[in-house]
Amino acid sequence: MVRLLTVDDVCRISREVGIQTIFKDLIDRLERDFARWHQFQKMARIATHYPQGVIELMPISDDEFYAYKFVNGHPDNPSLDRQTVTAVGMLADVATGYPLMLSEMTLLTAMRTAAVSGLASKYMANPGSHTMGMIGTGSQAEFQALAHHVAVGTHTIQYYDIDPAAMEKFSNNLSAFDIACIPCEGALKTIQNMSIVTTATAKKAKVNILAHDWIQPGVHINAVGGDCPGKTEIDHALLTRAKIVVEYLPQTMQEGEIQNLSEDEVHAELWELICREKPGRTDPSEITLFDSVGFALEDYSILTYFYELASKNDVGRVVEMVPHLRDPKNLFGLLSR
Amino acid sequence: MVRLLTVDDVCRISREVGIQTIFKDLIDRLERDFARWHQFQKMARIATHYPQGVIELMPISDDEFYAYKFVNGHPDNPSLDRQTVTAVGMLADVATGYPLMLSEMTLLTAMRTAAVSGLASKYMANPGSHTMGMIGTGSQAEFQALAHHVAVGTHTIQYYDIDPAAMEKFSNNLSAFDIACIPCEGALKTIQNMSIVTTATAKKAKVNILAHDWIQPGVHINAVGGDCPGKTEIDHALLTRAKIVVEYLPQTMQEGEIQNLSEDEVHAELWELICREKPGRTDPSEITLFDSVGFALEDYSILTYFYELASKNDVGRVVEMVPHLRDPKNLFGLLSR
Repeated sequence: MVRLLTVDDVCRISREVGIQTIFKDLIDRLERDFARWHQFQKMARIATHYPQGVIELMPISDDEFYAYKFVNGHPDNPSLDRQTVTAVGMLADVATGYPLMLSEMTLLTAMRTAAVSGLASKYMANPGSHTMGMIGTGSQAEFQALAHHVAVGTHTIQYYDIDPAAMEKFSNNLSAFDIACIPCEGALKTIQNMSIVTTATAKKAKVNILAHDWIQPGVHINAVGGDCPGKTEIDHALLTRAKIVVEYLPQTMQEGEIQNLSEDEVHAELWELICREKPGRTDPSEITLFDSVGFALEDYSILTYFYELASKNDVGRVVEMVPHLRDPKNLFGLLSR
Repeated sequence: MVRLLTVDDVCRISREVGIQTIFKDLIDRLERDFARWHQFQKMARIATHYPQGVIELMPISDDEFYAYKFVNGHPDNPSLDRQTVTAVGMLADVATGYPLMLSEMTLLTAMRTAAVSGLASKYMANPGSHTMGMIGTGSQAEFQALAHHVAVGTHTIQYYDIDPAAMEKFSNNLSAFDIACIPCEGALKTIQNMSIVTTATAKKAKVNILAHDWIQPGVHINAVGGDCPGKTEIDHALLTRAKIVVEYLPQTMQEGEIQNLSEDEVHAELWELICREKPGRTDPSEITLFDSVGFALEDYSILTYFYELASKNDVGRVVEMVPHLRDPKNLFGLLSR
């Protein structure tokens, strides 16, 4: 039998556990899973491109669980009253190949994307980096704010979006948390005096959200929104000034901010910092940049986490997605049962 | 909202529509979908191998639907009271990237595998081939029998399996249909005087189910069970005597009977016969062989077919696997609803 987590089930678990506890647990799990990088069978995601957008499958596995996610990216969806990115995922048992859980992953993707940014900031930002400039306050923004609040103690956020309604939504949603949110006019003002800068915009094109001469020494940048061939956010000159860390190089070379750079301009994969195989920041004045595109390992971490939470609290319906047969060879007999 | 088809839902649709009608409709659909081969974005399936078995993702799409299947192959599962092959699949809307249906696919895979064999026999066997030798009467066997009954009017089947209980199950399950089933001792006796030979065995190894000097001129062979690197059923000398047709060459070269041949020993892909781009059988005495490994296009055909059936008859629960947001940017707001 397969556990089915709908949107309501994921919301219920999140409320019962508490979103800040979820971020704390999830960042710990991501750290542990990235630390055992070589135990995973990995590949770049499998993308199918259309004029309207992209549909992707993202599989990964260790010797216990196989996880994958179906995810789309359709930039014009909001004009159709739909979301740009939605996702559905599955967890399966490697020993038998049987599915264990099917889950909504639109919310889970938003959580794990923010959690891995928080984890990267913990390893890359200067100690005492408690302020953040947030450019783009769409679907991902509040998750980034809370993940950073939990990961590095962010207490002040300057924010900006080209859509005023999205800015209002951001501050409303965060009013219940202990974070001072300061609206700004334009990207340049948003990043002033902030020790961390996070960009999370959705336009499927090459745009320069950050000009290279805006960035002060010592800043850590999370570039979250550039995650598709042809879709980047960061000025080329800024990239060449920054110490760049990625999730999984073969995938990020295709999709990330670094798609116009060569591999040797990338400092490390995140797991190398976590495993102390490469140093992170070595100088307080360095500009560091985490070029986040979203990697299947993060889906593995959150799916196994929510599988535990849902099983423990018995949340989600258990459905027969795989036949149980008394005689495993009598599949045809099912039809007459 | 996403339609969810459980095992029970698929059984219910199959009973209500009738399994023979399903095979008739499905063979027609496969023929139409293979005929528009160039409208699909195709790839070989994405396999992850383990000591215990294999887990695969099989995506495909045209400009209307994206379909994929998760499927495992674990040969030792029956000893754990589990099935060797189970599957779960999804259909999504290309225009928005939104999922439309999640379905059990263990039964659907058995149906589409048999239907494409029936379709191949229709194009490759000699006219008037109404008898079949069936070697291996596991999960796939009854589906093969009925698909051939519908596709080419098979009325007599000689059958054999190394497991006597599987043989009994086969004849019991087919007793309600107008097919004479004759048990045989051993593979050689099973194929004698039969105009079509179908092999569907499960052993994950190189075995020779058919010796090359057993096969009479004019026979058409469906080799269903060889579908994995290192897993083949057919004598090499027989392969070199036969006119071989495959589903999708890049995938079959890795997995099929032809994995030990070169590409130029393969006559055609099935769609080329259907589109009359290459001739099928040109001589009544030719031995023809359909090297079936299962291709994603067949999953597309059956998923779109069952999506129509389920929607029309309102079978299957509709579940919220993708959040519906009044403000598409306010994903975070869901958590407090």
